[in-house]
Amino acid sequence: MASVVKELEIKGCAAKESSRKLASLSSEVKGRVLCEIAVALVARQKEIITANRHDCETAETAGMGTAMLDRLMLNAARLEGIAHDVRSVASLPDPIGETLEMRTMPNGMQIGRKRVPLGVIGSIFESRPNVTVDIASLCLKSGNAVILRGGKEAIHSNITLGKVLQETAYSSGIPEGAIQLVESIDRSAIVHMLKMKGIIDLIIPRGGASLINFVVENAMMPVIAGGIGVCHTYIDKAADFTKAVAIAYNAKVQRPTVCNALDTLLVHRDIVASFLPLIAQEWGKAGVEMHCDGSALEILGDASYVKALAATEDDWGKEFLALIAAVKVVNSLDEALDHVYKYSSGHSEAIVTEDYSAAMRFLNEVDAACVYANASTRFTDGAQFGLGAEVGISTQKFHARGPLGLKELTSYKWIVFGDGHVRP
Amino acid sequence: MASVVKELEIKGCAAKESSRKLASLSSEVKGRVLCEIAVALVARQKEIITANRHDCETAETAGMGTAMLDRLMLNAARLEGIAHDVRSVASLPDPIGETLEMRTMPNGMQIGRKRVPLGVIGSIFESRPNVTVDIASLCLKSGNAVILRGGKEAIHSNITLGKVLQETAYSSGIPEGAIQLVESIDRSAIVHMLKMKGIIDLIIPRGGASLINFVVENAMMPVIAGGIGVCHTYIDKAADFTKAVAIAYNAKVQRPTVCNALDTLLVHRDIVASFLPLIAQEWGKAGVEMHCDGSALEILGDASYVKALAATEDDWGKEFLALIAAVKVVNSLDEALDHVYKYSSGHSEAIVTEDYSAAMRFLNEVDAACVYANASTRFTDGAQFGLGAEVGISTQKFHARGPLGLKELTSYKWIVFGDGHVRP
Repeated sequence: MASVVKELEIKGCAAKESSRKLASLSSEVKGRVLCEIAVALVARQKEIITANRHDCETAETAGMGTAMLDRLMLNAARLEGIAHDVRSVASLPDPIGETLEMRTMPNGMQIGRKRVPLGVIGSIFESRPNVTVDIASLCLKSGNAVILRGGKEAIHSNITLGKVLQETAYSSGIPEGAIQLVESIDRSAIVHMLKMKGIIDLIIPRGGASLINFVVENAMMPVIAGGIGVCHTYIDKAADFTKAVAIAYNAKVQRPTVCNALDTLLVHRDIVASFLPLIAQEWGKAGVEMHCDGSALEILGDASYVKALAATEDDWGKEFLALIAAVKVVNSLDEALDHVYKYSSGHSEAIVTEDYSAAMRFLNEVDAACVYANASTRFTDGAQFGLGAEVGISTQKFHARGPLGLKELTSYKWIVFGDGHVRP
Repeated sequence: MASVVKELEIKGCAAKESSRKLASLSSEVKGRVLCEIAVALVARQKEIITANRHDCETAETAGMGTAMLDRLMLNAARLEGIAHDVRSVASLPDPIGETLEMRTMPNGMQIGRKRVPLGVIGSIFESRPNVTVDIASLCLKSGNAVILRGGKEAIHSNITLGKVLQETAYSSGIPEGAIQLVESIDRSAIVHMLKMKGIIDLIIPRGGASLINFVVENAMMPVIAGGIGVCHTYIDKAADFTKAVAIAYNAKVQRPTVCNALDTLLVHRDIVASFLPLIAQEWGKAGVEMHCDGSALEILGDASYVKALAATEDDWGKEFLALIAAVKVVNSLDEALDHVYKYSSGHSEAIVTEDYSAAMRFLNEVDAACVYANASTRFTDGAQFGLGAEVGISTQKFHARGPLGLKELTSYKWIVFGDGHVRP
């Protein structure tokens, strides 16, 4: 335990010290270093893959499941993919240094806000070793130092990746200390990291709900946590059926395992008898299972083209992450809004309607990170929103909401150009 | 204890429920209600002053000091002042509804961010009852519901003010529940409030350092806390002495008891012998006591025009909130930057110089909420920065930094106008 704390304190101080220089590093240097990291990841693949094989063998012996093992595994193609992602980050505009709202006050003083890094970002994540490179490159680009603490299953992969990142970065102009990898696999390392207020300015957890909840509840510093996505699509009585089928199909089927996929379909009673079979036929072909309320089940209960079951109370507000959709019939837009208010996780919500007022009410009244009229919730994504890299998707309201880009890893300072100004 | 929790849960739910309607209230209604509150505060002054007298008498019997008693006391003139502040808030532009960065994506979908309230704001504050009205009017204007928990010394004043606020607001179009006043004076009310994540979206503590630290350390939700201000002014070797004297004088003397006042004066060695007596004479006239390092003391030790003592290690990084300044002689801009890095609380820092490169380095390299070239740190203030009302001054980097206006009590949501768009 004492050695864990010591490791963290030493690495934390080194990161903080480096962050002072990192903040004023030019975009040119940061971009060049990221490109060199991309090269090194491929050039040193033998070393990385050897370390990763060690992790995979240990995990296999310990009985890790196939899906998890697959997430842990690195090979030449995957390293090439990771290097490609680093190059993408390198090519994004540098958020640091942008000056916002510079203006001249009545007394002649010029005041503006200038974008600066947050300082030191801590990241706690689970077994996928690509997250090590992903988070480090986003932090570098945004001028932040980073302290990485990956899962113990990937410890050898992470140590080797950390070495490649550090050696490449420090030899190309990044101040020493900017990239730190925690080697203690003890859980006490996480507990201590979350207490390092004053050293770590922001914590980004990546992983399952239990890790994220633990971090949110115990961190003494701010956390950016992607919450769960319980996403509703409401088919209004004035919906265009062609658009409605396309949107509901896309939202559920295009990638069912992610947070912005459809969980609950709400359908207005006036059109449910004609609309529901249309989407059910399409969903049926894709293997979607429908958990229906009483009214919806009356329509679909005997259908041969889809598996329709009775919904339980548990189905409302549930994130399925699978080819399952809850279906509820509502009597009005208000009832739809009430259902969304009650069950939404504040991630992504959509209405399909040709009724102008209904669309505007939905956009205005639904309180979620992303609210859609006549589009699929699957668009909630940094790249789709034009932000370039995505740090995560926030369902918080504080600091940043929805897809997070590099700007969301920054703060600002007020800068004032005076000429002997004093306050009257 | 159980009744405290019950009170908070009932009031919290009512606030949350009201926040849903509050979010889409028009600027017109919010402005009119605030003006009516200003009228009611004066019209119902008898009732308010009677309740306040009760508090003052209890506090006097309990032995409260004169300064504290003065802060607690309300009279007709002070109520008029509070009403004036409410009218000022009413006249500010409404931050809610502003749409940021609306743009059309390559696929024709229109995406933008729309400013929305945070939801429910909790405020925990000490004995000054004017804070009740101050925070409530800022929250109303920004479309947030509010849960107020004032100090027990002002409980009767606060209950009466709360009643005036609620009765006026609810009869003029504000949804019931939007303004909540916690009546439990037990400290467990604070402890429980800080756990009400999911109900309270943001906590604003107002008061002494011990209250603020307690809130920061225990709140499960985000906190906006004005930290302490340890403010440095660095007089560079290329300073214009007239400007330097005026700025250092203003920063220390104009209002020494506030967070943006000068605490430490740093002076370049090359000009210290000629500059230091100039500011010392002015400070001396104002009664400023100077805590000097060895080099400064050599110059001022025998001066008759100022009280100059030897500084102790404790003087560096200290917020004096009084007519005291620590004085240190530095050999270079780098040494000044190092001192500021080590001792700054990240509030307000200034350089006085005619050297372009020195000014730019200071502005770029100092990491504080507000960094000045050739101006007094006393300008760090919402009104001076053109923000209108000031919610506080943040020394945090997350969400908002420096003077906080109404916009800092808001979040945003992404709104998307599609036309049947699905993700490829």
